[in-house]
Amino acid sequence: MAFIRTVFILAGLAALRANAAFNGLAITPQMGWNTWNAFSCDIDERLILETAQTIVELGFKDLGYHYVVIDDCWSAGRNSTGHLQPDPNKFPNGMDFLSDKLHSMGLGMGMYSDAGSLTCARFEGSLGHEQIDAQTFASWGVDYLKYDNCFNEGQSGTPLITYNRYKTMATALNATGRPILYSICNWGEDYPWKWAQTVGNSWRMSGDIFDTFDKPDARCPCTGEDAFECQLPGWHCSMMNILNKVALFPEKGVPGAWNDMDMLEVGNGGMTDDEYVVHFSMWAALKSPLIMGNDLRKVNAQTLSILSNPAVLAVSQDPLSSPAFQRWRYYVGDKDEYGQGEIQMWSGDLSGGDMLVVLLNAGDKNRNMNATLADIFWDHGPGGTATQVKQAWDVYDLWANRVDNATANAIIAAAKANTTAPDNALPFGYNATANGGYEAGLTQNVPALFGKKVGSVRPNGKVTAEVRRHSVAMLRLRATKVEL
Amino acid sequence: MAFIRTVFILAGLAALRANAAFNGLAITPQMGWNTWNAFSCDIDERLILETAQTIVELGFKDLGYHYVVIDDCWSAGRNSTGHLQPDPNKFPNGMDFLSDKLHSMGLGMGMYSDAGSLTCARFEGSLGHEQIDAQTFASWGVDYLKYDNCFNEGQSGTPLITYNRYKTMATALNATGRPILYSICNWGEDYPWKWAQTVGNSWRMSGDIFDTFDKPDARCPCTGEDAFECQLPGWHCSMMNILNKVALFPEKGVPGAWNDMDMLEVGNGGMTDDEYVVHFSMWAALKSPLIMGNDLRKVNAQTLSILSNPAVLAVSQDPLSSPAFQRWRYYVGDKDEYGQGEIQMWSGDLSGGDMLVVLLNAGDKNRNMNATLADIFWDHGPGGTATQVKQAWDVYDLWANRVDNATANAIIAAAKANTTAPDNALPFGYNATANGGYEAGLTQNVPALFGKKVGSVRPNGKVTAEVRRHSVAMLRLRATKVEL
Amino acid sequence: MAFIRTVFILAGLAALRANAAFNGLAITPQMGWNTWNAFSCDIDERLILETAQTIVELGFKDLGYHYVVIDDCWSAGRNSTGHLQPDPNKFPNGMDFLSDKLHSMGLGMGMYSDAGSLTCARFEGSLGHEQIDAQTFASWGVDYLKYDNCFNEGQSGTPLITYNRYKTMATALNATGRPILYSICNWGEDYPWKWAQTVGNSWRMSGDIFDTFDKPDARCPCTGEDAFECQLPGWHCSMMNILNKVALFPEKGVPGAWNDMDMLEVGNGGMTDDEYVVHFSMWAALKSPLIMGNDLRKVNAQTLSILSNPAVLAVSQDPLSSPAFQRWRYYVGDKDEYGQGEIQMWSGDLSGGDMLVVLLNAGDKNRNMNATLADIFWDHGPGGTATQVKQAWDVYDLWANRVDNATANAIIAAAKANTTAPDNALPFGYNATANGGYEAGLTQNVPALFGKKVGSVRPNGKVTAEVRRHSVAMLRLRATKVEL
Amino acid sequence: MAFIRTVFILAGLAALRANAAFNGLAITPQMGWNTWNAFSCDIDERLILETAQTIVELGFKDLGYHYVVIDDCWSAGRNSTGHLQPDPNKFPNGMDFLSDKLHSMGLGMGMYSDAGSLTCARFEGSLGHEQIDAQTFASWGVDYLKYDNCFNEGQSGTPLITYNRYKTMATALNATGRPILYSICNWGEDYPWKWAQTVGNSWRMSGDIFDTFDKPDARCPCTGEDAFECQLPGWHCSMMNILNKVALFPEKGVPGAWNDMDMLEVGNGGMTDDEYVVHFSMWAALKSPLIMGNDLRKVNAQTLSILSNPAVLAVSQDPLSSPAFQRWRYYVGDKDEYGQGEIQMWSGDLSGGDMLVVLLNAGDKNRNMNATLADIFWDHGPGGTATQVKQAWDVYDLWANRVDNATANAIIAAAKANTTAPDNALPFGYNATANGGYEAGLTQNVPALFGKKVGSVRPNGKVTAEVRRHSVAMLRLRATKVEL
Repeated sequence: MAFIRTVFILAGLAALRANAAFNGLAITPQMGWNTWNAFSCDIDERLILETAQTIVELGFKDLGYHYVVIDDCWSAGRNSTGHLQPDPNKFPNGMDFLSDKLHSMGLGMGMYSDAGSLTCARFEGSLGHEQIDAQTFASWGVDYLKYDNCFNEGQSGTPLITYNRYKTMATALNATGRPILYSICNWGEDYPWKWAQTVGNSWRMSGDIFDTFDKPDARCPCTGEDAFECQLPGWHCSMMNILNKVALFPEKGVPGAWNDMDMLEVGNGGMTDDEYVVHFSMWAALKSPLIMGNDLRKVNAQTLSILSNPAVLAVSQDPLSSPAFQRWRYYVGDKDEYGQGEIQMWSGDLSGGDMLVVLLNAGDKNRNMNATLADIFWDHGPGGTATQVKQAWDVYDLWANRVDNATANAIIAAAKANTTAPDNALPFGYNATANGGYEAGLTQNVPALFGKKVGSVRPNGKVTAEVRRHSVAMLRLRATKVEL
Repeated sequence: MAFIRTVFILAGLAALRANAAFNGLAITPQMGWNTWNAFSCDIDERLILETAQTIVELGFKDLGYHYVVIDDCWSAGRNSTGHLQPDPNKFPNGMDFLSDKLHSMGLGMGMYSDAGSLTCARFEGSLGHEQIDAQTFASWGVDYLKYDNCFNEGQSGTPLITYNRYKTMATALNATGRPILYSICNWGEDYPWKWAQTVGNSWRMSGDIFDTFDKPDARCPCTGEDAFECQLPGWHCSMMNILNKVALFPEKGVPGAWNDMDMLEVGNGGMTDDEYVVHFSMWAALKSPLIMGNDLRKVNAQTLSILSNPAVLAVSQDPLSSPAFQRWRYYVGDKDEYGQGEIQMWSGDLSGGDMLVVLLNAGDKNRNMNATLADIFWDHGPGGTATQVKQAWDVYDLWANRVDNATANAIIAAAKANTTAPDNALPFGYNATANGGYEAGLTQNVPALFGKKVGSVRPNGKVTAEVRRHSVAMLRLRATKVEL
Repeated sequence: MAFIRTVFILAGLAALRANAAFNGLAITPQMGWNTWNAFSCDIDERLILETAQTIVELGFKDLGYHYVVIDDCWSAGRNSTGHLQPDPNKFPNGMDFLSDKLHSMGLGMGMYSDAGSLTCARFEGSLGHEQIDAQTFASWGVDYLKYDNCFNEGQSGTPLITYNRYKTMATALNATGRPILYSICNWGEDYPWKWAQTVGNSWRMSGDIFDTFDKPDARCPCTGEDAFECQLPGWHCSMMNILNKVALFPEKGVPGAWNDMDMLEVGNGGMTDDEYVVHFSMWAALKSPLIMGNDLRKVNAQTLSILSNPAVLAVSQDPLSSPAFQRWRYYVGDKDEYGQGEIQMWSGDLSGGDMLVVLLNAGDKNRNMNATLADIFWDHGPGGTATQVKQAWDVYDLWANRVDNATANAIIAAAKANTTAPDNALPFGYNATANGGYEAGLTQNVPALFGKKVGSVRPNGKVTAEVRRHSVAMLRLRATKVEL
Repeated sequence: MAFIRTVFILAGLAALRANAAFNGLAITPQMGWNTWNAFSCDIDERLILETAQTIVELGFKDLGYHYVVIDDCWSAGRNSTGHLQPDPNKFPNGMDFLSDKLHSMGLGMGMYSDAGSLTCARFEGSLGHEQIDAQTFASWGVDYLKYDNCFNEGQSGTPLITYNRYKTMATALNATGRPILYSICNWGEDYPWKWAQTVGNSWRMSGDIFDTFDKPDARCPCTGEDAFECQLPGWHCSMMNILNKVALFPEKGVPGAWNDMDMLEVGNGGMTDDEYVVHFSMWAALKSPLIMGNDLRKVNAQTLSILSNPAVLAVSQDPLSSPAFQRWRYYVGDKDEYGQGEIQMWSGDLSGGDMLVVLLNAGDKNRNMNATLADIFWDHGPGGTATQVKQAWDVYDLWANRVDNATANAIIAAAKANTTAPDNALPFGYNATANGGYEAGLTQNVPALFGKKVGSVRPNGKVTAEVRRHSVAMLRLRATKVEL
């Protein structure tokens, strides 16, 4: 049998979690921020600290964004004892200083290295230095390691070769005694979804994202049904390209070990607001890590209100940990300027017997979309045989209560003025960090986590929604309560 | 040369069998029942015992269904001495108790483990523990091991890596001294049909079956001519998807070592009666193991009459062991709701000089189908040159004598009342278990094994049949006896 | 750079040959006969001796058919000392007796084993027994070993794994001190054309041939541009299927080491006379080994006159050893009953500055075909820049002088009556064996080796020919002699 | 993340270079001449010396063409001490004599060997002899080694196997103490762009080039989106075939380690003048090594004026080392005689904030082409968000100042008469060798390096050009200077 999800439903969540990841971390997909998408190599201590401060003040920390990750270009190579050194111009006070600061704000410290002789930007890599580098990171108080794949000295080509390379660092990290979330970034080469669950907390499953909805790029060549067999993952992959790749194996992500669809581009300017809503919705529905990649110091109202939507975050962090699956996909005639046009329907189990439904319109025109209960609950019984098809459902729109621009601008202004309240999640309706995650809120039916009721579906009926061009309807079905 | 079948015809069956599988088991494809398709992790001792009792009382045992296989989720991990322990809540009397019970009913005891660090449901796996686990299974009286592929620590990517992993358990099983049928379940990764004949009794050649006739699913991505080169076998593969994959290499199954098309979905509700007839017919024609996957305690008349058809079982268990081959395949315009539509013709040698012909209508409309003797006997001489083309044949319909619903319901009722006869195969016309298999019945021309004569074909003629939408004509050609 | 041919033209033939195969054999493609295609496992000493006698009496020996190869099913396994034993029922006088007989007739003795634990027909294989088996073969006077690939215990998946497996036997054969032509038969898996030149004399580059012109078969799945990347070479491959595969890499065959397109089906009945002419022409043009596969004791006139055509054999055995290359290929509308239809043009350098041109009509209608000198001499200068394009050529039809049926029948009758002349090649116009091959005859302009002059081409002109459905024009261009 | 370029812009060029190639060579793509394309095995000392002399006298040396590379067929095998020996007939004075001569002319000495048991022309290879052969080459004063891939004894199939084979020679070369540029030639097998940057200075990324613009050839089978996954790189690959392959991964070339698109065919006669302009332009734009492959002793005016264009060479040797990327590609209806027809737009960063734009017309008709600034600057900000889109640009045509035929003929005549000036680059406007490369000239705005201003583009505008059939517009955008 293949990996299965229904097992977990039956086995119960407590047992599941005890059984979970090799290091006990990332029981739900990790959340945080990373320097790369917005800043590339142009990073320094000040950027990190200002961003961390912003994460706290805008309420992102309370919503669960925990890790602040320094990507490539922080290094000055090894010193005479072979220890990695931070670039003294960029990080004059050292990395332990920085992690102390982050920890004091209640955030996690993330760093970057590479399972090769050089990092992608050609700084010193960790291949052959795993033990000493893991110890260095631990000694600096690092809580998270993104581990890249450039210049790997030919150590790829079969799962076993790559597994061994990445396991070496896993073992080294665990040997430090410090819990360090291990984010494998080998771009999906050699099928990490086959082997990374027992050695890492997440694995990139594609080439690098670029801030575009669906533009094809010669540098991201693998597409179609066999996109997963990709020895050239590439870069400049569009958001839709990555989504259509992960559609082949969402179930490979399990508690403690997730399909990583790459860091978020929300707010970086290359997509429309609707497109960013699609991006964020699908990353949440597919249980990808949610690592913000924009300049938070300059966040605008629209970006803030996307990244902070608690009803969508509650899908990402749902305790059932069941990803959405693509139920159908059709090409449509209304192609956009890049020649792309399609519609998709996804659904996935949520805790409490709820069901997520996503109607994705990647065509070039607004359209009315619908999904039958038979298709939505296909995995519970093919051909409409599932009992769920025979019942009535209330439909909640998870984007309906998105914070409006005025509120968002007030939050931003308050953060800049340092006048925010102690509980910065207040405007968003739920403080996940204070509550140890989203499970408590879901159990208690905290309204902010359920969006807005917008309709209902009769037994054997259809869910319908108007969906704009390049947008999405993200809906939560809740069993209609029968009056007693 | 490639694997050949005609050799066996020439070499004689006795020699063939002596020469056969590495452990002497599964000289014809194994038959039995498995917990997974109907029950997933929701299993316990009571289910096993009730099902075993039903297997006996409904006559399945006498028809040859021998193994009762407990799939994943039976385990409570390892004890302090490293031995696997059954979950005490599910199996309070232990596994030896259960196998004693099964053996006392004349059935075989099957269990499940995984060639990885964890099973697919994330229980303890056997990778690195093969010897101790094989000994445990043997000590429990286990007769059959299904051995899965999840969480395999990157040990895949070339046939050799995977072969070594599975051979380790083969060696361990053989070392116990107990004959244990070894069912390799690595979903066709690394081409087990190339190497598994000398280390196992069967090998899954595709992703997991789902209870649907032909619905495509993104999670089962490999299709088309190169479907066999699949590094993502997936799950939710339709019955037709698997059939079209095995069409590329039926000959790889040989006595003692079979292409496993996955467990049967007959009776689980996702297909029509006609579709289940196709499913069962093709699994028999292709010499797949026949492992029932439904809840036998709730079996209905239609399901019973499919699974118990002795004329079809006699094809599966034919002593010649020659699979049917796909002679042609055409796409048709009458597509079903999932956009699929095709027709196929298969034929294969049977003992006694008989020939199996299957006309498969996977189009959306009923149609008249036909097959020329030239195409049917292609392998005996291309282009109509085979001597068989020049002779006349009687045509037997292997489904014509399917037990009617009234009879089937009476059998079910009797089983529930525990009033069945000592020979429960009686209503089906042949007791395979009492006769040591189907060869004796075939040699003796037991009528139940030959269906019903429905017509004849003249030399150089065509076999024709009306075939309903999503159904099959399964015919046995027997040389017309010339009056002397 | 890739393998090149023009080097050899420049370097001279003598140097080339000294430099050639690892064991000095098969400087031109081997010729002979093999039991499999016509007889499968139904073989014995009598068959071998009768066939050998026929090879001599029909003149095949004198034409260069040297090796008589016993394929699978000769074995009775290993004796107590681990030595392979022939089946005493089939070969009661042992294999040394047989090789003595063959040697006394001036023929070579060929045998078969398998680089796996079992042969394809499941007799004892040589994997792990290479040294002792090579010694056994040498002790029996064996001159040729066909070495198959079944049941190889997972030892495939990269060129290196497969190379090592086949090299082991190469080393063992060479260590015997007896020159034994080594015919690698791993069906093209792991790209033997990349590595087999230094360890073998030929390598199969496809799945098994079946006696059909172009019928597709599900069991031979690899087609199209990437047909070479085939992990399921299959069987029942049509003649055209194999031809279109080898078209991708003809240059990989070099003196002493050849692309093996599998044994000939000429005379087995599944193709028309024209189709067999295509088959034989292309195998010769591509420098495949020419191993007859029919029942020579029952050869008819048409079959004899194909297999014995010295003008075609002179192409196969040309001392320049340059294969023909496919210059163009077009699909045509006149499809045959199997839905196939295409035309192709091939050309290749011959000794003496001659040029081979093949116009292949695989469409369903007769047609007039032509080829420009620019295309024919493409490799000598692209776009018509070759000096050869500017000269005039005489055109010789290599099939025009094919022996007529009356003559062929007389030869057959004489052979049956044991009244043939000492030089049995006489009716065919050239005794290659007596002359040490075809080079002498070519140098001396023996007419039988050049077919019949049928026309000429002017500078910058076109070669034209009427080519029947499923047939070929096989032409030799010779520089037009300028009158002085 | 994938390899990135913008890092280098930020990091500064000095740091970049210090960090660069494993041996400090080829900081910009190597330039030179090689015997193979024009002469194959027909080489000797005289050819080398005459060509070297011509390189100097025609000004090529001063333009940066430094290495004179002797390809295959120079060898006479190993002597009794295992040292390679040059063929005494071809190189009677030995290789050290030759390298002394070349050095005395200010040129570099290049040689050839093979990472296999034999070279492609079947001379002695270096596999297993890496140390002694590297020492031999160093002792001969060799500055450059092209290292081929024929007859590699199965040592391929995963990046690791191939990496190890090529690294062995890298280590051996470095151990000699002599700086030897290491040109890996394994035709792109096993993805050298993944691993060769740390062991070599360049790697072939495709099968062998043939002197044709776009004719498909069965012997170069890998095309399309997955062309990079090629286990049969082949030969007779057209110029466009190679270009379309490298389009998938231009970024893999970095200072010191380049994608090698194979040696130039400019001047060999198989393409039109326009086509050669395309060829040379694209090789420069993609940062391929520029190794001339024609008979320089017979160079004509057109060939000279292509190979010597300093404005194009300045793109190749630009200190930013950023390749052009393919921004779009469309198939067009005007197909040429080989059935090919497409148009492409490429752009890439140049030093000084300039931008390269290439409009490639591979259709069969002349056409007006254009490119939006939004597309040109896509990588600087998707969807037109880059700041560069909002500014005005001057457009320089890099081919406008190509030397005219009269001038070129005068240069050729002077060279033949040995009357050329001490600075032979004079007619071309820049002496790169005297200036240590092209950076100085670019910094100083030497006019010859910038072509001719032909227009300008307004903010948010389009670059337009008339582009002939099978030709190219190669343009350099320079920020329009605002009048103060």
